Amino acid sequence: MLQAGRGSWYNTRMKAEIISIGTELLLGHVVNTNAAYLAGKLACLGVDLYHQSTVGDNPRRLSESIRTALGRSDLVILTGGLGPTVDDITAATVAKATGRPLVLNHSALNGIRSFFKSRKMRISAGNERQAYIPQLARPIRNRLGTAPGIIIEIRDKSIICLPGPPRELCPMFEEGVAPYIAKRFGRLDLLVTRTIKTVGMPEAGVNRAVRDLLELPPPTTVGIYAKLREVHLVIMAKAATRKLALRSIAGIEKKIRRRLGGIIFGYDDDTLEGAVGAILIKKKMTIAVAESCTGGLISSRLTDVSGSSKYFIRGAVPYSNDVKVKYVGVSRDSLKKYGAVSRQVALELARGIRTVMDVDIGLGVTGIAGPDGGTAKKPVGLVYVALAKEGGSVVKEFRFSGSRQDVKWHSSQAALDMIRRNI
Amino acid sequence: MLQAGRGSWYNTRMKAEIISIGTELLLGHVVNTNAAYLAGKLACLGVDLYHQSTVGDNPRRLSESIRTALGRSDLVILTGGLGPTVDDITAATVAKATGRPLVLNHSALNGIRSFFKSRKMRISAGNERQAYIPQLARPIRNRLGTAPGIIIEIRDKSIICLPGPPRELCPMFEEGVAPYIAKRFGRLDLLVTRTIKTVGMPEAGVNRAVRDLLELPPPTTVGIYAKLREVHLVIMAKAATRKLALRSIAGIEKKIRRRLGGIIFGYDDDTLEGAVGAILIKKKMTIAVAESCTGGLISSRLTDVSGSSKYFIRGAVPYSNDVKVKYVGVSRDSLKKYGAVSRQVALELARGIRTVMDVDIGLGVTGIAGPDGGTAKKPVGLVYVALAKEGGSVVKEFRFSGSRQDVKWHSSQAALDMIRRNI
Repeated sequence: MLQAGRGSWYNTRMKAEIISIGTELLLGHVVNTNAAYLAGKLACLGVDLYHQSTVGDNPRRLSESIRTALGRSDLVILTGGLGPTVDDITAATVAKATGRPLVLNHSALNGIRSFFKSRKMRISAGNERQAYIPQLARPIRNRLGTAPGIIIEIRDKSIICLPGPPRELCPMFEEGVAPYIAKRFGRLDLLVTRTIKTVGMPEAGVNRAVRDLLELPPPTTVGIYAKLREVHLVIMAKAATRKLALRSIAGIEKKIRRRLGGIIFGYDDDTLEGAVGAILIKKKMTIAVAESCTGGLISSRLTDVSGSSKYFIRGAVPYSNDVKVKYVGVSRDSLKKYGAVSRQVALELARGIRTVMDVDIGLGVTGIAGPDGGTAKKPVGLVYVALAKEGGSVVKEFRFSGSRQDVKWHSSQAALDMIRRNI
Repeated sequence: MLQAGRGSWYNTRMKAEIISIGTELLLGHVVNTNAAYLAGKLACLGVDLYHQSTVGDNPRRLSESIRTALGRSDLVILTGGLGPTVDDITAATVAKATGRPLVLNHSALNGIRSFFKSRKMRISAGNERQAYIPQLARPIRNRLGTAPGIIIEIRDKSIICLPGPPRELCPMFEEGVAPYIAKRFGRLDLLVTRTIKTVGMPEAGVNRAVRDLLELPPPTTVGIYAKLREVHLVIMAKAATRKLALRSIAGIEKKIRRRLGGIIFGYDDDTLEGAVGAILIKKKMTIAVAESCTGGLISSRLTDVSGSSKYFIRGAVPYSNDVKVKYVGVSRDSLKKYGAVSRQVALELARGIRTVMDVDIGLGVTGIAGPDGGTAKKPVGLVYVALAKEGGSVVKEFRFSGSRQDVKWHSSQAALDMIRRNI
């Protein structure tokens, strides 16, 4: 359990509450990632979130939830139910619960119209209906969808409605809601967080190295999270100013860096593929990838980085043995003698793609992603990752567990980490 | 938004509610997957879930939540806060809220002791404290952790407490809670769902085609969700037996298939890449992909399917123009005349990789994934997808919006859909 949120030293701070709307959430068809996203963002803004609740597409229960929330919180954020269909009840229910009838908002209508215009699509009556928002409310622009957000102020309280799809909700929060909260609710104690991201050491090992820091009392605490073969340490500091918070963070960060050094690949929003890209750009190096069992995933992750065309020259997914021989230069002898999933073939993939493409770094990956294709000697999850560069090559054997997608993901993490460590 | 939960015909059914406990949830450090898991399980058991809420590790707010829940629900499931530390407040708060003091439960203590014994570890005082549960409550065995679950019956209502870690909670629900609910609350109606997945038509279009079905009253309803460029229709039937539920579903499914025909690619857990793979296997066809802006994503998705080595021969990510010319056979003239992002180059990628690899289907993708690299004439999001096969080729222009990853994803959906429609 985290320690943050205990103690009484900030009881005068602003209280927020999230209400997630959608029967699909109550049926378990969808995991509520919006609640976690908003919770994290509110914490960073210095807003205390004390309640989150989910209700279905039911006006009576939603009304009750809104009333309860307004009774105990200063800021109520509603997500979902803003779509163009008759089931989307949020705007109408908020209107009723606050006594503010729905009226046509021209700024909202213009936003919806320009959304359709830019996509060369015809606007439907249902979408025009989305421009009706409660009286005296104001719309929040939605660049990526048709439903505008809604801000309603009732004396010293605010209700904010956002659409359910995360790709619409997230930018709207960043661009429209966060600045609004900061302005309306004035100076708040801030929670500043700093995430330190590591790869290549299991959680237990990282835990041992920083155990004392994980027990620090508030206002500055450290949490540990393992996720998709990375371990993240999150330093959280509460303070009156950003500067004060950053100062407490810096001291702890220094300790962590001293202890974990090389396994740290980045901070906060950094990704492993981004970190690898930054090193390649800095060293002015180019790379080509010949990946078999990962099937294009490493290339796809490397090219997720904007500007990757500067260093990423070519990805090859030589799935069949013939292609491995003909296009990447793997020898038929090695395939016969060692098998396609072998140290030797991984090395030849890496060296082959490097030579063929005349790049600085060649990466080769071969393995058994499963669930079929494993043998006693070569089980599912056996993966070889090799890297060729000027002056030599390296190759490593891994034994991963999990589903086909897990094995692919783990392999891509190992491959990206190998690039990072060897250039 | 889903329609289920409306209407009053099953108001006499049992009402459940989930309270998730943990400050880490309210700080957004953890996504609440337990709530979705439990919601899904309750739906299958025929239990209606009307509320889910989250509170931090705060006894006062948790007490309030428990009291509210008992006032409106028959079954209240609490998750989290059962650990051995002082922050774990669930057992004590439930004891107080129900007027049942904590007492040592010997069966719980034995469970905890045998957990430690089997792992050859010493039991701590904190863990022994976990054997104290409210009077007249009974423990639920936890095979994978130290915190026992708790079942408390108060007249005709039940409170069930489960530990937060999903790997402990899930088996405990299956083994200890599901049988309990079935027994205590008698024979319940089942909820059976059937998901029909479509691609290639916007949500508004699908909505128009099935609008009348979306308004069907319980016990058999239809919901619509748009997700990552797919539109899913979920048929939900409540009935006393699985057979009856399946019969109502079949009738509606038939109508939907008649109206949406070609845009349906699969059902329930089917994926688009899996559907494409199944067609390729059925037709005994092979495929190779030359993808530029998608950077390997299409190959990675195609190879996410177990057994894809039967049809997927090679993926190429010819990121630079030189590679496009040298290895896939795009002509320098076309690159010069039309630019790398053009109808012509997409076609040449598709035809080139098909010829070079001697496969049945060649797929070519080129576009501007952004956020940089766009121009007025060729904006970010402009993507060409081409397919070459015996007897001809097709190419389509798309204009996608969103982040670099969004554009890549949308392009991969369009490409997979093009394969599906053209073979």
